[in-house]
Amino acid sequence: MPLDLPTIRAAHDRIRPHIRRTPVLASAALDAACGGRLFFKCENLQEVGAFKARGATNAVFSLSDAEAAHGVATHSSGNHAAALARAARLRGIPAYIVMPSNSPKSKVRNVEAYGGRITFCEPTQQAREETCARIVAQTGATMIHPFTDERVMAGQGSAVLELLEDVPDLDLVLCPVGGGGLLAGTALAGKAVRPALQVFAVEPAEAGDAARSFSAGHIVPLEHTSTVADGLRTTIGAPNFAIMRRHVDGVLTVSEAGIVAAMRTLWEQLHVVVEASGAVPYAAITEQRLDVTGRRAGLILTGGNVDLDALPWLGPAR
Amino acid sequence: MPLDLPTIRAAHDRIRPHIRRTPVLASAALDAACGGRLFFKCENLQEVGAFKARGATNAVFSLSDAEAAHGVATHSSGNHAAALARAARLRGIPAYIVMPSNSPKSKVRNVEAYGGRITFCEPTQQAREETCARIVAQTGATMIHPFTDERVMAGQGSAVLELLEDVPDLDLVLCPVGGGGLLAGTALAGKAVRPALQVFAVEPAEAGDAARSFSAGHIVPLEHTSTVADGLRTTIGAPNFAIMRRHVDGVLTVSEAGIVAAMRTLWEQLHVVVEASGAVPYAAITEQRLDVTGRRAGLILTGGNVDLDALPWLGPAR
Repeated sequence: MPLDLPTIRAAHDRIRPHIRRTPVLASAALDAACGGRLFFKCENLQEVGAFKARGATNAVFSLSDAEAAHGVATHSSGNHAAALARAARLRGIPAYIVMPSNSPKSKVRNVEAYGGRITFCEPTQQAREETCARIVAQTGATMIHPFTDERVMAGQGSAVLELLEDVPDLDLVLCPVGGGGLLAGTALAGKAVRPALQVFAVEPAEAGDAARSFSAGHIVPLEHTSTVADGLRTTIGAPNFAIMRRHVDGVLTVSEAGIVAAMRTLWEQLHVVVEASGAVPYAAITEQRLDVTGRRAGLILTGGNVDLDALPWLGPAR
Repeated sequence: MPLDLPTIRAAHDRIRPHIRRTPVLASAALDAACGGRLFFKCENLQEVGAFKARGATNAVFSLSDAEAAHGVATHSSGNHAAALARAARLRGIPAYIVMPSNSPKSKVRNVEAYGGRITFCEPTQQAREETCARIVAQTGATMIHPFTDERVMAGQGSAVLELLEDVPDLDLVLCPVGGGGLLAGTALAGKAVRPALQVFAVEPAEAGDAARSFSAGHIVPLEHTSTVADGLRTTIGAPNFAIMRRHVDGVLTVSEAGIVAAMRTLWEQLHVVVEASGAVPYAAITEQRLDVTGRRAGLILTGGNVDLDALPWLGPAR
């Protein structure tokens, strides 16, 4: 199936009964501070607290009954795992989740709460992939990759469709980039609905692989990342990078201090809980990585799963 | 003007261009924990971060041009002050705000940001009232009391109208009570639209004047209150109490620990920033002050203005 607007619209129709229509928030104070108009698409208020519910739900409900009967599998320590477990439970099929043995307890509990069947592995990329491949071989489950899977990308693209329904005359969209699933769906859907729309990817400079890769014209993985935006430490996927090269207008990077300050400002001004990764697009505005004066910008607040005992502006957890 | 459903509907029409239609959130996890269905009306996402925007805006836009020209005045250290300053600015008139000299800086900045003209006074009720009376005498401004003013009560009642539009078949509503402005509007509007609706007031046991007064049949002020829910320390107003006696089904009280735990749970599960006062209704459910098994309950999340350096579950501010 080609990854195009009809596919993304079909994904949206497929998942609509199972996800939330998230609100778009705005703030006169934040607008005044930047000189533009900002529209925040609140995927932190989505099911499982993240846009990941969209892609995982589309993937699970795209399966034939015969495929679905064997379940789905993935390796993830984050929101995709919870989202896949939830979607599988909605369809009444098993979800096999491979998690690194050092995953935070809150993430493990989250997956368990949705009935995911967890297998722990060594915390290396190789161990994750091998363990997942073994489970797929044993069970016949369908592997649902967190960001290279086209069904996942199509589902993630539904967020910008809703945003453009609510705010049709956007000039640009700012989207965080980690593996690039949300970015691919956003760029494809956004540009198809509104060709004049500019789409910018934003990432922490500390995990600046997408910016480097965009400049180099090929993927340049980073050896070490240490950003507070834990959802964006991943290297961009190959299909995601190909879409980014064709459809994204630029890649912006932001500082760690900028991310923490942006996160805090969003909590104070919008009164929502946004995780550090979700605050990255707003940091691009506060750090003046692009000029939004007189322009209308959409920002995707990607998630709201935060350890409330370890807020980054308060220093180390007590 | 009588405080009845047509008046409250007229208030809603009057303020609609100036306030937000706030979303109603729900959570499968919170529903499972209590055995009922919970619908959270997110007034923490309202303009100025609190339902107070409704009442203050209705009061300001109810004035004749001749009255309005002299401005409005109030004494308040909280969200009503910011809401009144904002509404006055929208109408292009002055707002004279009397604040105790020990008000938190963040509250002072908030009022200043909306262009309020602040006069500081000694932190006693007498000094507040006298200072405000002097300003009214000097300027001819209209005094807008934070909760006994009928225009304010009518505006606050618009929140439950929206909630019942979104969730028509509610069995009950839980509403925090401090001065009783929101409670009066909620009870009058809620029962008028849906006579079968039960309306419960909830307050901290540490500021349990409404519960005591409800039992006694007359207002019993407390000498000392020390609750974390700083918006609910006020003693209920006389007209508010009269409405409560006629239209409210019961008054529930909750513990300090229950409020803090409820606040934290709402942040984690709904991904919104709710102030302690706004978490009080949910504490009534977690502390099993009433049984919601199989019932559909609306809860008004009244505000989201929180000192992010002093979260109550983290102990004293660092």
